Amino acid sequence: MTDTDSITEHDMSRFDHRKYSPAPKVTGFTRTWPDQEITRAPIWVSEDLRDGNQALLEPMTVEQKQKLFKLLVDIGVKEIMVGFPSASQPDYDFVRWLIDENQIPEDVTIAALTQCRDHLIDKTFESLDGVPKAIIHLYNSTSTVQRERVFEMSQDGIIDIAVGGAKRVKENARARPGVDWRLEYSPESFSTTEMDFAVRICEAVMDVWEPTPADRIIFNLPNTVEQVGPHYHADQIEYFCQNVKNRESVIVSVHTHNDRGGAVAAAELAMLAGAERVEGTLLGNGERTGNMDMVVLAMNLYSMGVDPELDLSNPDEIVRVVHECTGIALHPRHPWVGELVYTAFSGSHQDAIRKSLRKQQDDEPWQVAYLAIDPRDIGRDYQAVIRVNSQSGKGGMAFLLERDYGINLPRWMMLALAPHVQAASEKITGELGSPEIRDLLFTHFDRQTPISLVDYSVRRAGEGQKISVTVTENGEQFTLEGQGNGPLSAFVASWNARTGDDLMIADYAEQAVSAGSDADAIAFVQIKSGTVRIPAVAEDADTLSASIKAIISAINLSRETDDTGQRGGLTALAS
Amino acid sequence: MTDTDSITEHDMSRFDHRKYSPAPKVTGFTRTWPDQEITRAPIWVSEDLRDGNQALLEPMTVEQKQKLFKLLVDIGVKEIMVGFPSASQPDYDFVRWLIDENQIPEDVTIAALTQCRDHLIDKTFESLDGVPKAIIHLYNSTSTVQRERVFEMSQDGIIDIAVGGAKRVKENARARPGVDWRLEYSPESFSTTEMDFAVRICEAVMDVWEPTPADRIIFNLPNTVEQVGPHYHADQIEYFCQNVKNRESVIVSVHTHNDRGGAVAAAELAMLAGAERVEGTLLGNGERTGNMDMVVLAMNLYSMGVDPELDLSNPDEIVRVVHECTGIALHPRHPWVGELVYTAFSGSHQDAIRKSLRKQQDDEPWQVAYLAIDPRDIGRDYQAVIRVNSQSGKGGMAFLLERDYGINLPRWMMLALAPHVQAASEKITGELGSPEIRDLLFTHFDRQTPISLVDYSVRRAGEGQKISVTVTENGEQFTLEGQGNGPLSAFVASWNARTGDDLMIADYAEQAVSAGSDADAIAFVQIKSGTVRIPAVAEDADTLSASIKAIISAINLSRETDDTGQRGGLTALAS
Repeated sequence: MTDTDSITEHDMSRFDHRKYSPAPKVTGFTRTWPDQEITRAPIWVSEDLRDGNQALLEPMTVEQKQKLFKLLVDIGVKEIMVGFPSASQPDYDFVRWLIDENQIPEDVTIAALTQCRDHLIDKTFESLDGVPKAIIHLYNSTSTVQRERVFEMSQDGIIDIAVGGAKRVKENARARPGVDWRLEYSPESFSTTEMDFAVRICEAVMDVWEPTPADRIIFNLPNTVEQVGPHYHADQIEYFCQNVKNRESVIVSVHTHNDRGGAVAAAELAMLAGAERVEGTLLGNGERTGNMDMVVLAMNLYSMGVDPELDLSNPDEIVRVVHECTGIALHPRHPWVGELVYTAFSGSHQDAIRKSLRKQQDDEPWQVAYLAIDPRDIGRDYQAVIRVNSQSGKGGMAFLLERDYGINLPRWMMLALAPHVQAASEKITGELGSPEIRDLLFTHFDRQTPISLVDYSVRRAGEGQKISVTVTENGEQFTLEGQGNGPLSAFVASWNARTGDDLMIADYAEQAVSAGSDADAIAFVQIKSGTVRIPAVAEDADTLSASIKAIISAINLSRETDDTGQRGGLTALAS
Repeated sequence: MTDTDSITEHDMSRFDHRKYSPAPKVTGFTRTWPDQEITRAPIWVSEDLRDGNQALLEPMTVEQKQKLFKLLVDIGVKEIMVGFPSASQPDYDFVRWLIDENQIPEDVTIAALTQCRDHLIDKTFESLDGVPKAIIHLYNSTSTVQRERVFEMSQDGIIDIAVGGAKRVKENARARPGVDWRLEYSPESFSTTEMDFAVRICEAVMDVWEPTPADRIIFNLPNTVEQVGPHYHADQIEYFCQNVKNRESVIVSVHTHNDRGGAVAAAELAMLAGAERVEGTLLGNGERTGNMDMVVLAMNLYSMGVDPELDLSNPDEIVRVVHECTGIALHPRHPWVGELVYTAFSGSHQDAIRKSLRKQQDDEPWQVAYLAIDPRDIGRDYQAVIRVNSQSGKGGMAFLLERDYGINLPRWMMLALAPHVQAASEKITGELGSPEIRDLLFTHFDRQTPISLVDYSVRRAGEGQKISVTVTENGEQFTLEGQGNGPLSAFVASWNARTGDDLMIADYAEQAVSAGSDADAIAFVQIKSGTVRIPAVAEDADTLSASIKAIISAINLSRETDDTGQRGGLTALAS
């Protein structure tokens, strides 16, 4: 950098690939995995409550953990890592709650993580007092970097740590008979460990535990930081499977991370290479770039005709609960379950989908272009997003509304409006114009009856905002009063208090508009009632009035039912 | 479903894997790719302006396309697909702008997509009038489903379409000598096409075009919908490379999608199998689940010592421009570039990173636990997120602030505050308590001087909100007046108008707080000035007052400089 460079510029000279090198080839095994096929689901292991929780800026509350545990049980996960009870009081308390409140179904096994230290192992067992069966998950770091730069120990020293841990686990287990104790050992950072050493340390642990084919030890081989391609990881797993002794007494487990974007692929290829058990999280939450996403891998198996052994018939519920517990929103392009996955924008894609759908019979294999599965399998619908301005191939309703009225549709409103525009465009010849699209928006999403706004006032108070809203309903006039941080939440709170409804504002946008009506402001609001989301719109001379009327719209719409009796009428979106 | 089931429940019985089946094995080739190594970057091809743009609810404006084109050129992409000029007027106009305004650098080749129809091919050439070189990208669908269910044609009929297109391209090219015309042909839906047919149709196109080793034809083999694992895709590519005739006159190109979450892995393994050219987009925008992410694949190469031949030294700029152009926010766990990628929450991870960093020499290969690359290479820093309540291993500063003061830190403020908490915790023995953490928040992010709030009033008007704010600065008092949709944006607009600043509100949160001060409300605001983001906080008796003071905080902070002269002082975050 020269002196004249701005100090805020990055130091470009640091961008130099030469300080990195590829991993050495895996040798000493016969590669068979590219010719294998996956014919059954792995043993699924949830790391949501440990690896996932540990990576959150706001760790989960006990209530959130309980909710997530319930979800995992409901969808059929049979092995659930519950945390680090020896090192974390909240994890300890959560484990006690699971056991004391009898929350673990008979066919579910919980796992607890511990380092190879005597007092931590003892405390782990103590936390599990009263459990009928459990997995003790013991780990220590084995990679070259960890040995040389962190622990400054020889390979033998690292083995001593693992063996010491295994012995302590065995003593504790022996002292507590009548419980089905299982041992899981992870040579942490396996994927950057010398393969022969990884086998050697696992065999040393095996010699302590003495597993049998009827009572197998779990060797979990973490791709702690993904630094190699998925094919390389598969080679490592196959090496291990071919070289570890007493293979028939071992369950080989993988735990992949997503640093190179390949966590799912690495787990899938590892299954071909012999892995029987896969640790991951729902939607891939976890350290840094996240853990292997169980939902995606399970749907990958599903889409090639393999029973995923997880019930993913309602992924929207998974998305909702995970978001509530992690605070991390789903990317709209998330494989299988993102908001944009079953949309088709291009006219030729839409055409091909329509033609294939028309020929698709219920009792034959799925054969539809551009749709890997039938979206209805998981409670979704195929969504054609019409380019209204189809001649140009661009633009569409959002473009027209913005160009002609200055209306910026929020994305969730675009998705809600699109089917109405599509239905309308199929009824007419030629194209829909801006006025027709604008009419469709207000016809379907603005409802100022039976509840109608009469008047309102908002007052700033030391405590926030006070609002008073007067409405009529079927001739009866009444006033709602409330207070809160903002006028809209105050209004909704006062509505809920009066009616017993459970409405919440899920999303919200307001804007000044340029033309097309007497109104100068438009407001969009998405109200949530239970699992149903109701998008609504309203306009008025100012944004606050428009916003209040948008909430009234949503309230009115929430009380309508469509032909199928669904609440929220045609406007409801799956949440 | 029984009659008593709720109508809003999903029809669970649809979730049945038996309607899908695995792809048939690829035979007729010798698999060598698992033993290959990647030693150089592919020819990168950007699909951002075509596949990416086509998948947006709001397609890009001309201005956004220009910005994205410039970014692609700046980072070193040499082949850029610019759209579908024969089918889209905006694309046509954009191509004309590129050529007429001389926007294409000498070492960059643009590509234009067209179906195999004479008038579209003619119009494509017409749109390219005056270009010194270009790629005509011709495609038609070849998969079984497309042939049988969409086109209802035999294999020979599908070949006729492709051959007819190639002939028309050749005629147009001959009629326009002096231009370096290249042909790219895609058997669209290649990955669900019979492999021998894919080779046959490409060879038929080759027979028309008559490529030579010096002037090769591009065969692009799309994984249009990802329905197979990355290893299977690699087998398909290797089959093609081994079976197509005149291999030395062919550039094999791949174009993968992310339906199973494996787009990057599929492209990477395809490179091992012989692909020399990779089509993708920045950060993976594209139809449904998106295209192959060029940033991730390039960083994967980089991290194993291969020159990526793209300048990714400043990915934050890529993130910013892509977000501006697509409206889709980056996931915080996005590989290599997400907000949470270089964070470590766990004490043992933090410890291992610190120990390895201490030993790392500048002139030796990178050997640091839990960090695949040096984050400084791409303008980032390693960020240890301290669990303040370290004994329990959970909680941390966010937990303490929430428990003791009811303060919910927005994520961006957590990230901004964390280094200050860390620095403070390293100076004392023992743990930081809630009061110390609260003090750090206000010490670093609340600045009520030199500009101080005197008074303000807000008035609803037909046009939105009018605000009048009186402040003092060094004894001088002045009043700012503005109007807008909300009081805060009105205030910022009036500030910019008075000072010539370019401040924008990037993010915003306000809340009532429970205890700990005389204030009842706290507001967080993140102000953007150019590429710098300035997080700030303030408290007051009500949320509106707190919000206005938070903006004043940000303004004051934006005028401070830290030791290095960086604007926004210690609080600035890379945008």
